[in-house]
Amino acid sequence: MPAISKKGQLMPESPIRKLVPYAEQATKNGKSIYYLNIGQPDIKTPTIAIQAVKDIDIDVLAYSRSEGSELYRQKLAHYYTNHNIDVSEKDIIVTTGGSEALLFAFGSIMDSGDEIIIPEPFYANYNGFSIASDIKIVPVISKIEDNFALPSIEEFEKLITSKTKAILICNPGNPTGYLYSEEEIKKLAQIVKKHDLFLIADEVYREFAYDGNTHYSVMQEEGIEANAIMIDSVSKRYSMCGARIGCLVSKNKAVIQTALKYAQARLSPPTLAQIACEAALDTPQSYFDAVISEYVNRRNTLISELKKIEGVKVANPKGAFYCIAQLPIENADHFAQWLLESFDLNGETVMVAPAAGFYSTPGVGLNQIRIAYVLNEDSLIKAVAVLKEALRVYNN
Amino acid sequence: MPAISKKGQLMPESPIRKLVPYAEQATKNGKSIYYLNIGQPDIKTPTIAIQAVKDIDIDVLAYSRSEGSELYRQKLAHYYTNHNIDVSEKDIIVTTGGSEALLFAFGSIMDSGDEIIIPEPFYANYNGFSIASDIKIVPVISKIEDNFALPSIEEFEKLITSKTKAILICNPGNPTGYLYSEEEIKKLAQIVKKHDLFLIADEVYREFAYDGNTHYSVMQEEGIEANAIMIDSVSKRYSMCGARIGCLVSKNKAVIQTALKYAQARLSPPTLAQIACEAALDTPQSYFDAVISEYVNRRNTLISELKKIEGVKVANPKGAFYCIAQLPIENADHFAQWLLESFDLNGETVMVAPAAGFYSTPGVGLNQIRIAYVLNEDSLIKAVAVLKEALRVYNN
Repeated sequence: MPAISKKGQLMPESPIRKLVPYAEQATKNGKSIYYLNIGQPDIKTPTIAIQAVKDIDIDVLAYSRSEGSELYRQKLAHYYTNHNIDVSEKDIIVTTGGSEALLFAFGSIMDSGDEIIIPEPFYANYNGFSIASDIKIVPVISKIEDNFALPSIEEFEKLITSKTKAILICNPGNPTGYLYSEEEIKKLAQIVKKHDLFLIADEVYREFAYDGNTHYSVMQEEGIEANAIMIDSVSKRYSMCGARIGCLVSKNKAVIQTALKYAQARLSPPTLAQIACEAALDTPQSYFDAVISEYVNRRNTLISELKKIEGVKVANPKGAFYCIAQLPIENADHFAQWLLESFDLNGETVMVAPAAGFYSTPGVGLNQIRIAYVLNEDSLIKAVAVLKEALRVYNN
Repeated sequence: MPAISKKGQLMPESPIRKLVPYAEQATKNGKSIYYLNIGQPDIKTPTIAIQAVKDIDIDVLAYSRSEGSELYRQKLAHYYTNHNIDVSEKDIIVTTGGSEALLFAFGSIMDSGDEIIIPEPFYANYNGFSIASDIKIVPVISKIEDNFALPSIEEFEKLITSKTKAILICNPGNPTGYLYSEEEIKKLAQIVKKHDLFLIADEVYREFAYDGNTHYSVMQEEGIEANAIMIDSVSKRYSMCGARIGCLVSKNKAVIQTALKYAQARLSPPTLAQIACEAALDTPQSYFDAVISEYVNRRNTLISELKKIEGVKVANPKGAFYCIAQLPIENADHFAQWLLESFDLNGETVMVAPAAGFYSTPGVGLNQIRIAYVLNEDSLIKAVAVLKEALRVYNN
């Protein structure tokens, strides 16, 4: 029988999705589950976006341009301008989700064996994309004790080699919920300019900045126009995860021209979803105000409930809708599976994402989980109660 | 300024899309263009598919499963069974177009530097996918004089090395229109079994088999269940190019498990398009009968008109909706650009795809073009008349 590639063998299973079979079995066994494992919000998609799809009047569902429809890119540039990001449609390639934008970025700036520095813990799928692209992630460790703030310039510089091509940040952070300050972005700008590196920023949670903080984009920082590549997506902004529309944005023309060649090879991003996205750009500010207020309440509830559990350590997230919690256990992988297979509190259990998959350093984060606060406050309170009792039983 | 990767520099421009700026300028200059360059049919998408999207009743546009929605995969397995391809939903990973299915297949079975043998001319974007995947295409030449039939087993075996991992065919062929016979598939089966290779078949034009011929899938061939990987797409079948839904199908469980890891990394295929695709599977046979009859008429008209031009050589396509024409010129790249920039017949000109981009052997196919017969017969007759006059003027 012909063999699978080494790369295929190395591809990680998704830490978020690998427990799905256990969850399905648990459901079959009559348990009800609080899904805190996946960033699929319960927030409604703007009606205007759904309605635009319902109103389509087309005979042929045709390809769009490889770089995305002209009208969508123009409206998107306008949205960025409103967020103090000065770009035109020429600086934008529309992609199939933020995922494809990352793959285009990796392919445009890195060859086999090249290195990218990423503060860890980081979005788990960066591991998969790096293996698919045959590049190496070099992690720089950020700590739960510091709320996962940016490591010092010295920590980055220690890791830079002749193979280092880029630094990648997720801001606000998945899974940390950390929001980088303008000062931290300026530090990164200094490093990438000094060492002639790209700075890729995954900013898909831009709108989700709390407590009066505002998001500061790498595209706002002057002097790094040639270095900065922004990754974006509509998935979280409009609760449209299933649209699969993202984009790659850069003022570096060589990057855009190269990404366009990758875009041409796969022909075009999804046409129906672009229609929804174009309409979604007219979503009123009141929608975001309500959503942000909802997430702040959820975060406050979740964090305060978690802190009541003895032995649980949790960072204070300032953005996105995740937090990392350190549990008084040794192996969160085992615990998460046990929650589904062997535990329930009055017929209910919780599904969480073991955090080890969000690290690339082996053995780190084994006692941590990622919680997505994508459920309402009442459910969060109940879910944490289940978690608390589960920890008591598990540790006895 | 940080540099683009070598791989990014090597990525080819699409031979189909690189002339678009010239076409846009020609249109601005008041010329009207017959677009024979791109496989975007004018055929209507089944109403049932569009209507399913218009009828959506959802609050949240959520992710689907990474491998595609359960219901869609079940219905798709049923469709294959009706086409004598005995698979279940477990053998199917739904992808974002056939493009992504190819990338998943390449990533699952090949590492950096591995080789894949492909009869050339082949679908131009295989070049881009091979560079993105850091693998090497080894072309085996098929000839216009033979209608681009399968080269002999000896020709394949001469090219097999320790790095060869797979053979890739497109059946019916883009750009050749060639439909492989059952006998030819059996020859390929013999080679891949003997040398323990994968056999990837891009069968996105399955329905488009003419003159009483029926398509024979690699999935129908007994004894190569572990070797065969089928790539499919709804783009052409239902004239739904913009849906961006394809799939990877294999009875080899390791291939499916590995492709699933790539699928998990990018989360899910587009949700709205899957709704359309699920409905499209109920398209009545009468739709296909009418479409096939239309394409046969177009092909007959196109080929007979082309044969009237002195010095033009053309193969007899038995499937898909493309043909390769050899022109009495030296450089089709230059000619195609000249058609847009400097020629018109009563305000009309033609856009074609230079065929060199469909070869990987340098210097081959320079005097050939690919014509997509995606326009009605009347337009095809007019387009060939323009081409005939253009050749006369160009050669004087």
